[in-house]
Amino acid sequence: MISRILVALDDSARAPHVARVAGQLAARLSATLIPFRVIPFPQEFPAAGGGGEHDELPAMLEDRAKRELLDLVAPLAGVEVEPPIVGVGDAVRAIIAASERLNVDLIALGSHGYHGWDRLLGTTVSEVANRARRNVFVIHDEANVVPAGTEPLP
Amino acid sequence: MISRILVALDDSARAPHVARVAGQLAARLSATLIPFRVIPFPQEFPAAGGGGEHDELPAMLEDRAKRELLDLVAPLAGVEVEPPIVGVGDAVRAIIAASERLNVDLIALGSHGYHGWDRLLGTTVSEVANRARRNVFVIHDEANVVPAGTEPLP
Repeated sequence: MISRILVALDDSARAPHVARVAGQLAARLSATLIPFRVIPFPQEFPAAGGGGEHDELPAMLEDRAKRELLDLVAPLAGVEVEPPIVGVGDAVRAIIAASERLNVDLIALGSHGYHGWDRLLGTTVSEVANRARRNVFVIHDEANVVPAGTEPLP
Repeated sequence: MISRILVALDDSARAPHVARVAGQLAARLSATLIPFRVIPFPQEFPAAGGGGEHDELPAMLEDRAKRELLDLVAPLAGVEVEPPIVGVGDAVRAIIAASERLNVDLIALGSHGYHGWDRLLGTTVSEVANRARRNVFVIHDEANVVPAGTEPLP
């Protein structure tokens, strides 16, 4: 049923946890894991000349993202890992597009946090879960659990 | 890692698919499955006298929900199923509360559809994925896939 898992890994402190849990699931299911990162291009890195095509990702950025993805999956034991994939542009669209193009059986990604673009990630999770045409595994980050009755800091 | 799965099953046409996929996952992971349904009480069934406590579910409704849950999991092969559980009130709160109370490792639920309270279910999925302190498995219903470029009917 589930033989290929796309795992979306950002550059946050919780990415190693997401990689680890997705890796454990893949190992238990004898599924292969495809590490994936989205680079928010071109908003943060406008193309010189204003071309702005979403696939014009500078090679340096792509290489760095792939190296970081490989570092994240390196500690995983007993899992077959496919070459890392980098997407560009809107996170939701990029994750869903990759899931379709690679024809994966499952999308794995981390739950949101409470600050910075972790909030964005929360939105990303909701939209991927609602809009993807694949099953989605949302990995909760235990480290972010707020004790009952405690409001998260602003 | 994942030894107990709470699967939220509504009374929609896609519930058997959700039960089947969750059952396959449970079988592969050697996890037990806990079938769970939320009854939107007391909005639809106001308590006589206006007490309105969320745990005052008429026994008839609870019995029927449990029978339907047992029917949904009856076809599952090779899965250890725990007794069905019925929650009342707001779906998101009820699912999250049950996941905490039963200390499950994973919440499984179906993705949203396109009409009626399936839209509500879509909201439920987003909120559960964002707010639960557990991993969440969102099961996409292939039967609801709308061809690219086609807008869902109102």
